[in-house]
Amino acid sequence: MKTVVVRNIKRADAALVKRLGVLGTATVHEAYGRFGLMKPYLRPIWAGGEAAGPAVTVLAQPGDNWMIHVAVEQCKPGYMLVVGCTADNTDGMFGELLATSLKARGVVGLIIDAGCRDIKPLHEMRFPVWSKAVSAKGTVKATLGAVNVPVVCAGINVTPGDVVVADDDGVVVIPAKDAADVAAKAEKRFADEDGKRKKLAEGALGLDMYNMREPLAKAGLVYVDNPEDV
Amino acid sequence: MKTVVVRNIKRADAALVKRLGVLGTATVHEAYGRFGLMKPYLRPIWAGGEAAGPAVTVLAQPGDNWMIHVAVEQCKPGYMLVVGCTADNTDGMFGELLATSLKARGVVGLIIDAGCRDIKPLHEMRFPVWSKAVSAKGTVKATLGAVNVPVVCAGINVTPGDVVVADDDGVVVIPAKDAADVAAKAEKRFADEDGKRKKLAEGALGLDMYNMREPLAKAGLVYVDNPEDV
Amino acid sequence: MKTVVVRNIKRADAALVKRLGVLGTATVHEAYGRFGLMKPYLRPIWAGGEAAGPAVTVLAQPGDNWMIHVAVEQCKPGYMLVVGCTADNTDGMFGELLATSLKARGVVGLIIDAGCRDIKPLHEMRFPVWSKAVSAKGTVKATLGAVNVPVVCAGINVTPGDVVVADDDGVVVIPAKDAADVAAKAEKRFADEDGKRKKLAEGALGLDMYNMREPLAKAGLVYVDNPEDV
Amino acid sequence: MKTVVVRNIKRADAALVKRLGVLGTATVHEAYGRFGLMKPYLRPIWAGGEAAGPAVTVLAQPGDNWMIHVAVEQCKPGYMLVVGCTADNTDGMFGELLATSLKARGVVGLIIDAGCRDIKPLHEMRFPVWSKAVSAKGTVKATLGAVNVPVVCAGINVTPGDVVVADDDGVVVIPAKDAADVAAKAEKRFADEDGKRKKLAEGALGLDMYNMREPLAKAGLVYVDNPEDV
Amino acid sequence: MKTVVVRNIKRADAALVKRLGVLGTATVHEAYGRFGLMKPYLRPIWAGGEAAGPAVTVLAQPGDNWMIHVAVEQCKPGYMLVVGCTADNTDGMFGELLATSLKARGVVGLIIDAGCRDIKPLHEMRFPVWSKAVSAKGTVKATLGAVNVPVVCAGINVTPGDVVVADDDGVVVIPAKDAADVAAKAEKRFADEDGKRKKLAEGALGLDMYNMREPLAKAGLVYVDNPEDV
Amino acid sequence: MKTVVVRNIKRADAALVKRLGVLGTATVHEAYGRFGLMKPYLRPIWAGGEAAGPAVTVLAQPGDNWMIHVAVEQCKPGYMLVVGCTADNTDGMFGELLATSLKARGVVGLIIDAGCRDIKPLHEMRFPVWSKAVSAKGTVKATLGAVNVPVVCAGINVTPGDVVVADDDGVVVIPAKDAADVAAKAEKRFADEDGKRKKLAEGALGLDMYNMREPLAKAGLVYVDNPEDV
Repeated sequence: MKTVVVRNIKRADAALVKRLGVLGTATVHEAYGRFGLMKPYLRPIWAGGEAAGPAVTVLAQPGDNWMIHVAVEQCKPGYMLVVGCTADNTDGMFGELLATSLKARGVVGLIIDAGCRDIKPLHEMRFPVWSKAVSAKGTVKATLGAVNVPVVCAGINVTPGDVVVADDDGVVVIPAKDAADVAAKAEKRFADEDGKRKKLAEGALGLDMYNMREPLAKAGLVYVDNPEDV
Repeated sequence: MKTVVVRNIKRADAALVKRLGVLGTATVHEAYGRFGLMKPYLRPIWAGGEAAGPAVTVLAQPGDNWMIHVAVEQCKPGYMLVVGCTADNTDGMFGELLATSLKARGVVGLIIDAGCRDIKPLHEMRFPVWSKAVSAKGTVKATLGAVNVPVVCAGINVTPGDVVVADDDGVVVIPAKDAADVAAKAEKRFADEDGKRKKLAEGALGLDMYNMREPLAKAGLVYVDNPEDV
Repeated sequence: MKTVVVRNIKRADAALVKRLGVLGTATVHEAYGRFGLMKPYLRPIWAGGEAAGPAVTVLAQPGDNWMIHVAVEQCKPGYMLVVGCTADNTDGMFGELLATSLKARGVVGLIIDAGCRDIKPLHEMRFPVWSKAVSAKGTVKATLGAVNVPVVCAGINVTPGDVVVADDDGVVVIPAKDAADVAAKAEKRFADEDGKRKKLAEGALGLDMYNMREPLAKAGLVYVDNPEDV
Repeated sequence: MKTVVVRNIKRADAALVKRLGVLGTATVHEAYGRFGLMKPYLRPIWAGGEAAGPAVTVLAQPGDNWMIHVAVEQCKPGYMLVVGCTADNTDGMFGELLATSLKARGVVGLIIDAGCRDIKPLHEMRFPVWSKAVSAKGTVKATLGAVNVPVVCAGINVTPGDVVVADDDGVVVIPAKDAADVAAKAEKRFADEDGKRKKLAEGALGLDMYNMREPLAKAGLVYVDNPEDV
Repeated sequence: MKTVVVRNIKRADAALVKRLGVLGTATVHEAYGRFGLMKPYLRPIWAGGEAAGPAVTVLAQPGDNWMIHVAVEQCKPGYMLVVGCTADNTDGMFGELLATSLKARGVVGLIIDAGCRDIKPLHEMRFPVWSKAVSAKGTVKATLGAVNVPVVCAGINVTPGDVVVADDDGVVVIPAKDAADVAAKAEKRFADEDGKRKKLAEGALGLDMYNMREPLAKAGLVYVDNPEDV
Repeated sequence: MKTVVVRNIKRADAALVKRLGVLGTATVHEAYGRFGLMKPYLRPIWAGGEAAGPAVTVLAQPGDNWMIHVAVEQCKPGYMLVVGCTADNTDGMFGELLATSLKARGVVGLIIDAGCRDIKPLHEMRFPVWSKAVSAKGTVKATLGAVNVPVVCAGINVTPGDVVVADDDGVVVIPAKDAADVAAKAEKRFADEDGKRKKLAEGALGLDMYNMREPLAKAGLVYVDNPEDV
């Protein structure tokens, strides 16, 4: 594999990114046919953070954050940094200094398939990070990786420029070419949910609202009155 | 196994449920002889939530929340919904819409041996959930399970109507027939602890308060003055 | 192995402990050559807690907190209690009553390679605990271990009197004999970081600030303009 | 919970047990509607072992094998011993001496939701064990549990007398009352598979044999000739 | 995402596949710059199996093996089937019948980021499988995925036609375009190792053979005679 | 921490090592009061291997095997190499070439709290390894650690010269100063077990042989005839 930095990437349209970010991961993931969700072991380091942006990608070696330093230069306002790793690792590859640098360049958040440290200052800076672990373990700067090549992060292949949407429910990735279609579907879904929410709050049953009774009976579901009847 | 819904269950007495809920999981679990505790991988999706109620149970297939929709109809005010799964799964089987529906029916909380999503709105609604994971992963409605049959959830077999008590320390399940006995023992234990807390705060040692010195010596514990004496 | 309690331990100097505590785990761990960090599965039971102190150590059997009761008597103001276990265990070996007792003796925090319970009251008391799990599971008092002998806790061998520093990023242990040297190096590091933080906030790149461009080129890093050039 | 030993249990018919054992876990589990399978973390301690029998059940405390000694007396020829635990544990609760004792009583195998030791002699004795871990860690005999009450083992609630079938694919549990029905269905399934195996070996496609093409098309599956067409 | 089957894929040259297969995963992975290795949780279901081939890829839903049936038709002699999953899953998605079908088509092995069953017959057939788990858990055929699109499997993005090499050490994936270059480098590495092996067997030290003494001293390594000198 | 190599270590007596090796891990661990056992995630890379020897210790950085090369020179006939790591890691730090080198020096086995590769040739060489993982992932030689200082490996602190005993049941470590005492106790235990084995094989019950009936009754164990009596 080439240890390379790609300077120019094709990023998803900023307006689309904004629309997807507003909708949140659960709705966007459903609209994309239930694909694109990173593994749930990625958790926000502080609750309530939300971010969306086109991805700048990093392929790093475990315990080595050299390529994150390289990637900072490739970041532009509104981007999300996405860091994959060539092997499982929980070391604290990212902390306050790198966050300060990313913030200065307008980066809106970090997704890292490894550890993160300086949780308290990162929370105070309101810089959102989704990581696999929290660990004070420091890292070396010894081995090359790559920047802005496709990388696997928490089970999803991320191509530079893909739209990354992250919130308390997780992280979802939408390829740039699908962003418009997914945004439209997700907005429709969101609008539909609003009506459903009201009906359910008033006591309607999903069984009726979604017309489930017939398919359930057809699948063989049986109702009995008492435990002894089972 | 029958894919069945049982309509009528025998639930623990409401007054007993209330008494057990006030005492909390640690005390209730001890009073029950240190049995009945679900595995500690179940965690509250937001800190500080507390709930207790008789169980409505669901046996679901992984990645499929069809039976949860079926179960909603069987819920009554004050109940807790308990969802077990036929295989390990972290998908987000439960979210805001189902919580809205449960809340409309007076359900006080959810225990799910799988994933949960819509963490933020669930927190805002103050609907407490104990789950194995947080995940935006959507689910299908394709395969039957059962409602109100005994289900294993996080290592504990839950019979419909059992008392479920949940707080920041975990989730404990007391069979309906044992609830009165456990409540009485737990209240006694709670009262005893109050006195102990005061003594300990004033500097008393557990070694003396619990008369441990003699059994420790008998078991062979030796005191030495310095590391070199070991 | 001897089931023994050692009464007198050589503890790190209180002033050194204070200096190390102020610097935090990430800085101290780096200053110690990136050694001494406990495994990141140890997490604070509530966010924002910080503590530092010389270690009183406990070697406990899984599911048995007898030796913690024994250890309380050996604790003095300013100490940290460190509990290792002879096998993996998540039971709630520690809770409100023991915390009340420790607080009465001036202990500043607990590190336990097992579970903890009574999360809510411990948070209200502001007693900081770093544990492997939260679990209401009660424990027995049946088998001896040892107090104030070297114990392995979350992957680190802790000798009684070692300095333990803990915060949201994890737990680091510095041998008493190295504390002065590490404190000096960590303070220097901290001072240096302050200047770097300012420069990075103003837009400087780590690539330039750390003179990375030359070693990166030497290691073989290549820049290309477009994805097609890879 | 009562710390009790139940002397007489209703066991599944021996002929049924034999029929189910011959069919193996995968077929039996399918015939039971894909229920009853223990979690896959249970693994045989040596490859190729197979066993089936009615369950004698043990509820043990972690790190304590006292109740296994109690259970031996309740075992009869052809039985399987099933050990659940009140908390996660990997200690070596079972080894050569207990296996010698069980073998003397005609027990055909052990399922244990904890650790096992003496792997080599157990293999030489051809005594099959399915366990969660291999560990030399010894255990105490200090706390009561129960024998022949329903216990949860690796995610499945086992009632004494249930049929347990175990092989290299895992462990499945069939309630005594369902054994005849499941055996009949499983035998039919097995016979059907034989014909399918032959056809597939001759090159038939499952797509055709199972008539999948139409439902796939209906569900929306599209065929394209080249990657560029996606 | 499109639920699609791509019929024609560009596969790596058969001669290259053969050369890479002979070299084994450790050597190939090193020759590719230490990239391309799937996560080590993928294990062979029987020891000693080895396979190499161009990938036919499947993206499956958890607990659903419908798309594997679809993929069989796209397989040709010499291929490897690679199955990724949209969420973590250990269900037994693959067994004897599918293996019979694959074998009839000349497929040389299976890599699956999920569970596998029928371990014994698969071993007897000498059909090699690398899986995440062994589980008898059966699966449904309910939800579409895709065949011959890029899929992430155990942390690596696999493009149809990539060379997959698997043995007891794990599974490595080399993009078709890099196969010739990697094969050449790996063969050179292999030849070098042969000479080294002989020297080491005769007692030569790696320290001398790899000229490590100088860089070690430069990095600060110190030799002392006795523990007290540390 | 000093990055240092200690040349001379005090090793346990060879005759004692031999006696302990013959007894095996389970017996030795019991004789040492149930202390000293490494975590059960360490598994032999091939079944049936057994080894015992005084420890040469290595503290390595994750993904970096430089210090193992350094340690080879410090090994003498009969030694065991024990490798701890500063952070969790599964990379293949050890393989055929290093084993060839160790074998040439008379080393009898390796314990490594990380990954191992070249499983097949290591098995063919009959070189026994207990590791945390099998992984083809190659490692760098970039960062110093230490040789022959105390290291934590899989939860146990190992001092150079300690006796390490390893077999299919796991790995146990006995401090050199305790070796004679433990060997004597373990031999007594072994002799006792022989008699017990015979009695149990003839049908004696552990309940009687260990006089458990009285303490069980005293602890409150109750026998009932039927499930309805519980």
